[in-house]
Amino acid sequence: MECFHDVDRASAFADAKMKKNNLFTTDRMFCDVYCFEPGQEQSPHSHDGSDKIYYVVEGAGTIRIGSEERVVEAGGVVLAPAGEPHGVVNHGSNRLRLLVFMAPLP
Amino acid sequence: MECFHDVDRASAFADAKMKKNNLFTTDRMFCDVYCFEPGQEQSPHSHDGSDKIYYVVEGAGTIRIGSEERVVEAGGVVLAPAGEPHGVVNHGSNRLRLLVFMAPLP
Repeated sequence: MECFHDVDRASAFADAKMKKNNLFTTDRMFCDVYCFEPGQEQSPHSHDGSDKIYYVVEGAGTIRIGSEERVVEAGGVVLAPAGEPHGVVNHGSNRLRLLVFMAPLP
Repeated sequence: MECFHDVDRASAFADAKMKKNNLFTTDRMFCDVYCFEPGQEQSPHSHDGSDKIYYVVEGAGTIRIGSEERVVEAGGVVLAPAGEPHGVVNHGSNRLRLLVFMAPLP
């Protein structure tokens, strides 16, 4: 597996919906770049037994964890603990990119 | 546990050596911010059974994975697969900050 990547080079967007770009997948985790055009979202969902982390690389997103919702800007990092509903909306007028880690593999 | 953090606010440096600042620890993973003054390093080491990911938030670091060593700048993301020796040196004259994920807990 290639161990060195660049988030900018791995970032691709799609008109239809938020696009997930995989950087790494191992037996234990994955790491993706999620790219949201304005108005795109990841609907709230949850994973029993797997934790997810979102890091905002570019833009700002409205991130919900359980019953708490916050606008998170670049540099923000958010934990969605196992079993907790979580979702993201790009409510703004700029592109949003998130670095995403999840372990163990769902 | 607090689920919302900010990497800038969590970043602290130390004169003596590279400083690890924990953001999240769960039963399955941890997420830290590692802060390196110029000249500071994380010596090569390995973890059987746990994968680590480094994301360069600020600055540039010389990152070794196994026998491969590269200078990685902000936006670079690097996988240290389980069992593979890995280390980081801040060879430059600016501060280096890495967002670090590891799973499962070593």
